[in-house]
Amino acid sequence: MATVETSIACCAPLAAPVLNDEEALATAELFKALADPARVRIVNALATSAEAVCACEFEPALGLSQPTVSHHLKKLTDAGLLEREQRGKWAYFSLKRDAVKKLATVADLKGVCC
Amino acid sequence: MATVETSIACCAPLAAPVLNDEEALATAELFKALADPARVRIVNALATSAEAVCACEFEPALGLSQPTVSHHLKKLTDAGLLEREQRGKWAYFSLKRDAVKKLATVADLKGVCC
Repeated sequence: MATVETSIACCAPLAAPVLNDEEALATAELFKALADPARVRIVNALATSAEAVCACEFEPALGLSQPTVSHHLKKLTDAGLLEREQRGKWAYFSLKRDAVKKLATVADLKGVCC
Repeated sequence: MATVETSIACCAPLAAPVLNDEEALATAELFKALADPARVRIVNALATSAEAVCACEFEPALGLSQPTVSHHLKKLTDAGLLEREQRGKWAYFSLKRDAVKKLATVADLKGVCC
């Protein structure tokens, strides 16, 4: 099975000494995955939860329909930020540990410029 | 004169214990400002430059027309990420020190979840 290349896997830090076209695109795609208030709230909910969260919990929390919640969860998962686990009828989501580390690195310009 | 509220001024960390609607929106807007490969390259160029960079330098570097470069620089400046300084005919840009610190904080989930 082919490996799916996610944005998080291919992106480069904003502060990278050299940034090629593919890395700039992947980094932009990663930020794009987070460029929506509902997705910011989902990541925030997962960051502040001790356990994986059922997709069903986001509907009332965000006041959105199930298809809309599924769309947002898919965008975040495709970007490589979330881990998806099927438990019976529902999918449970958590933040990917590696992705969290990489996101922090990508957005950190402190050491380089200021 | 009214204070312009930038995304960077109003956003909240992805890991914030509580995130209200306005903060989620501002955080998403901040990521949206970075959700474009040309803007990622501009921020990268500014991060790796010791001095402010003339808008005129981005046209050949990015292979984009002047209006397109101006559009991207405006988006980043409006989000509160860049400082703009007029020197004669040209505008010079640099990263805002406060914004750089805040961006790193916003995207850092390491301490909270993993």
